[in-house]
Amino acid sequence: MQIRNTLLAAILMTLVACGGGSSPAPAAGPTEAAAPLPSWNDGPARTAIVEFVERVTDPASADFVPAAERIAVFDNDGTLWAEKPAYFQLFFAIEQMRVLAEADPEVAAREPFRTLLDEGMGGLAGMDVHALLGPLVEAAGGMPAADFEATADAWLASSRHPERDVLYTDLVYQPMLELLDYLRAHEFQTWICSGGGIDFVRAFSEQVYGIPPEQVIGTTLELEFSDDTGLVRVAEIHHINDGPGKPVGIARHIGRRPIMAFGNSDGDLPMIQYATSGPGPGMGVYIHHDDAEREWAYDRESSVGRLDVGLGMAAERGWTVVSMQQAWSQVFPTR
Amino acid sequence: MQIRNTLLAAILMTLVACGGGSSPAPAAGPTEAAAPLPSWNDGPARTAIVEFVERVTDPASADFVPAAERIAVFDNDGTLWAEKPAYFQLFFAIEQMRVLAEADPEVAAREPFRTLLDEGMGGLAGMDVHALLGPLVEAAGGMPAADFEATADAWLASSRHPERDVLYTDLVYQPMLELLDYLRAHEFQTWICSGGGIDFVRAFSEQVYGIPPEQVIGTTLELEFSDDTGLVRVAEIHHINDGPGKPVGIARHIGRRPIMAFGNSDGDLPMIQYATSGPGPGMGVYIHHDDAEREWAYDRESSVGRLDVGLGMAAERGWTVVSMQQAWSQVFPTR
Repeated sequence: MQIRNTLLAAILMTLVACGGGSSPAPAAGPTEAAAPLPSWNDGPARTAIVEFVERVTDPASADFVPAAERIAVFDNDGTLWAEKPAYFQLFFAIEQMRVLAEADPEVAAREPFRTLLDEGMGGLAGMDVHALLGPLVEAAGGMPAADFEATADAWLASSRHPERDVLYTDLVYQPMLELLDYLRAHEFQTWICSGGGIDFVRAFSEQVYGIPPEQVIGTTLELEFSDDTGLVRVAEIHHINDGPGKPVGIARHIGRRPIMAFGNSDGDLPMIQYATSGPGPGMGVYIHHDDAEREWAYDRESSVGRLDVGLGMAAERGWTVVSMQQAWSQVFPTR
Repeated sequence: MQIRNTLLAAILMTLVACGGGSSPAPAAGPTEAAAPLPSWNDGPARTAIVEFVERVTDPASADFVPAAERIAVFDNDGTLWAEKPAYFQLFFAIEQMRVLAEADPEVAAREPFRTLLDEGMGGLAGMDVHALLGPLVEAAGGMPAADFEATADAWLASSRHPERDVLYTDLVYQPMLELLDYLRAHEFQTWICSGGGIDFVRAFSEQVYGIPPEQVIGTTLELEFSDDTGLVRVAEIHHINDGPGKPVGIARHIGRRPIMAFGNSDGDLPMIQYATSGPGPGMGVYIHHDDAEREWAYDRESSVGRLDVGLGMAAERGWTVVSMQQAWSQVFPTR
């Protein structure tokens, strides 16, 4: 199975382009209203979400959906937390490349590891995209699954975002945290369906989003089990949970069609198409990154998180587009 | 990915050997005791299970496990329902081969479809094992995922076991239904981890076992998604959830190590090894088919559900072996 070159190219293009971002604006405090979704402004996005939830949870409604079938799926990068200047997992994955190279002189002598050690992360940006995927996967495999979890935990607890100088987990979206709570309060299951690595997302999903590991779907490596070694990660991709891989991952993990799907890029389009493919009710939602002041502004021309086809289709099919600028009174949690 | 020849050979060996089974004995009624697990006799198996559950759910115990981490995994064939004279799904899968052949003269003219149409299921038993896997997968693929679900539902609601002349779902084990309820009452998640096809098991898991589709792990086909066609099954195996594939499937779907694992064959051995690989508490349980009167008696020499290595290892490592004859006062539900 091959990862898309375009995806990898997009990641690399943004690798060193860490300047040019905005500085964080002071976050507005959440409103004092007892209403749900306090960081959501009154407006079409909030109204559409609340009306949909009320419609499918009202036993008197023709669109009533039993609790067991209330499945909401969320992309992660750009939907639940930020994804600029590059997918946060990439910073972790390149750090893993460095750890591998530092531990093994044979690896350190090979490209692109040598460039990484000599020039740092920025040195990789000039490389051919095909030259980087293999090393990234090589560095991600070859360790016991339990060790990976501890490594990711430690990285998340200590590494800081290159522009904002905060923990990566500080860059989750406060309105989305409230939305997850709101949906769970209405007996929805809230699932992550991420293009990111399943084990990486699981390392923080429960603590940060309240989403347990069994409700995380993501890209997976091959795994091997033996009585002697336990579960060991193999440096080979098993499933790429992006684009059409998202509905496939959902079908395998959940076995039911979701009735709500939240994304922010064309990689989420098939998942949103699937969730809205009826017969019953289905709601598709795009988070639109149009707030350069408080977050980042990007869509059709973006390298990471490109939203082009999906924006047109959203208008055509009546999906909800959440303008971060308009819809959210606060972007990141108050720390 | 290749299915094991031994597994397929075992299935085929039993295909026509539908005679020689026992006739059903009248089921003993469940005891009137208010105690949990009424169809379990007092004895070492019941005691071991209850003591383990009490130990991990008692906040004062050194082995206390928080509710979110109470994961129990169950093999299906031979552990939750019977598997003789052959895996029940095989009867369904061969019926699907017949449907495919009857719909398409080109397929009907090919072997083994021609033999199936001419001689019925028994005609397949003499075939080379390699000749059957392809056609079985061919018949399982190529349809919308939603159609498969309806097809499996209809088959389960109407087809009858060749020896017992009851619905296949009548051959679930009453003591295991009680055990599932008992564990859920103690805030365990109860998962199926089956070598069978994930979609086939999901077709009845919720209704029969109270296990929702998202808690079923099984063998999977490739899937494709497009906006036009939705999800379509592809006639290609994606993951074989047997042997070492079971802990791998568990890691992907659950992302936590289970603390209880129930199986009945050597295909379940890696799953039981995984669940009991500590550091925390872990319990492995084998259901031992030693009751020719009420069910079937088989273990080391069996073609389907062979339990050989695992029985030795259970003694060595202190896993619990449930003698169906000794431990269960009733095998199948009273109808």
